[in-house]
Amino acid sequence: MNDAPDPRGERPGPSVEARILAFEGGRTVRRYDRLATEEPLEIRLRAGGASQTVAITMRTPGADFELAAGFLYNEGLLAGRAGLRGISFCVDRELDTAQRYNIVNVDLAAAALPPLQALDRHFTTSSACGVCGRAQIESLEARGVLPITSDLDIDPATILALPERLRAEQGVFALTGGLHAAALFDRAGALIAVREDVGRHNALDKLIGWALLEGRLPLARSVLFVSGRTSYEIVQKAVAARIPIVCAVSAPSSLAVELAREFGVMLVGFVRGERFNVYAHDERLRAPVSVKR
Amino acid sequence: MNDAPDPRGERPGPSVEARILAFEGGRTVRRYDRLATEEPLEIRLRAGGASQTVAITMRTPGADFELAAGFLYNEGLLAGRAGLRGISFCVDRELDTAQRYNIVNVDLAAAALPPLQALDRHFTTSSACGVCGRAQIESLEARGVLPITSDLDIDPATILALPERLRAEQGVFALTGGLHAAALFDRAGALIAVREDVGRHNALDKLIGWALLEGRLPLARSVLFVSGRTSYEIVQKAVAARIPIVCAVSAPSSLAVELAREFGVMLVGFVRGERFNVYAHDERLRAPVSVKR
Repeated sequence: MNDAPDPRGERPGPSVEARILAFEGGRTVRRYDRLATEEPLEIRLRAGGASQTVAITMRTPGADFELAAGFLYNEGLLAGRAGLRGISFCVDRELDTAQRYNIVNVDLAAAALPPLQALDRHFTTSSACGVCGRAQIESLEARGVLPITSDLDIDPATILALPERLRAEQGVFALTGGLHAAALFDRAGALIAVREDVGRHNALDKLIGWALLEGRLPLARSVLFVSGRTSYEIVQKAVAARIPIVCAVSAPSSLAVELAREFGVMLVGFVRGERFNVYAHDERLRAPVSVKR
Repeated sequence: MNDAPDPRGERPGPSVEARILAFEGGRTVRRYDRLATEEPLEIRLRAGGASQTVAITMRTPGADFELAAGFLYNEGLLAGRAGLRGISFCVDRELDTAQRYNIVNVDLAAAALPPLQALDRHFTTSSACGVCGRAQIESLEARGVLPITSDLDIDPATILALPERLRAEQGVFALTGGLHAAALFDRAGALIAVREDVGRHNALDKLIGWALLEGRLPLARSVLFVSGRTSYEIVQKAVAARIPIVCAVSAPSSLAVELAREFGVMLVGFVRGERFNVYAHDERLRAPVSVKR
């Protein structure tokens, strides 16, 4: 049951390098940054010759066997170490390397699979699109989702002002400190709408739902600002609503950046104080770009 | 399609009041604090006389119709406003008030429900346990989960030292700023293990999975420290692993606090600088309690 990083480098690591455009001290600089890797992991339960996918979760590679064991324990599908025959990566020959290390087989000591209908709060599978981030992005393309072609651009000063403008509007957050926010701004930095939730994805769903109910979709002239990190799913929701510029207080994941690059979304992170980083489509930044490195 | 707060106060609000024990300036003070509400929302899709639950998500009440519309839009189940006949709360007579406002019916203009097999990444329903936080907690009790009776306690100084000890160990986080961490400490504040992930729940699953594979469960003598907020699901995982003390950098949700109180978990939030708040089971804090108000 060993899932330590392999010396041959076949498996995805916990972080990847990315070339970014940093804005700091009033100017832009190109440099390299490291991103946390985000890739799907499929957990398969096996017993008595039967096999069943019980979850697909977006995770950072590393400690994948532990992730599978902990997930199954918490779901009541694994009582302890004694219930385990083994854990292994999937080595089906038809899978490419990336997919192999995104599928974990958990073999139970029991003679049959436990009843799985109780597992009601987690992802079930669609094996159609493959279990890797690249395949997920390609499945969006296959579904006919096109890159965003809006020519919207934005000033550095407008980006820097977003956190303060959001704070001025956040009611419950200020009271509890416990909510995520998603806010829509126009290109000049005027706030259009803000929604809050304990869940980041919910805050963005509320915001896009508001736009839908108001007849404002697509949001091709809007800037999205989110209070946390940007994951694959956050960028995917922005793409669905056709938002060309996404800014965040914290870091993006590797897959969020890949998706943004593919679909024409300017992705900005670490908007703090007098600085920010642009991870994708920095041609939407209205500023003289001084390249240093 | 109005889901604005009702004047009679029948619906859950976005935040609730809680009595806490604050540690600041070297002493403890009892006072009131506000928590972001966390409650489940069930989204039901209806068309041509058929009805189907498509998601149950933990959310902060408010803008629930927008949340439903945005979720369905992003999943490709609703193309725009024209596809909508109406959105309403569920008013089935057999439901109590709390549950009514946790179920949203979305009526489509279409003659039949769209194919739902594509909806592969979201919660399906178990209507057995009811759709409210209270019912979720009761369903744990019904499944035989008992309160934690470990007599573990902890010094304020040990709690205050957790963030720095975690930072010293966080490899990828320091590099990328993009990861959540879950760490296990002993009662004296010595680090036992730490796991990181883009997802908070994954980080905790990895940590508990490590303990399972090492034969260390239950974790009745351990302190859990998480880098973000504490939701219902975080506390539920701690209860499953029998961890009596849970500390976090940020705020807990209303349901996290309720669950912790019910199951004997000391819940600490806002561990920052020289202060923290205790939201549940402060009898586990080893300190003279000076009550002021």
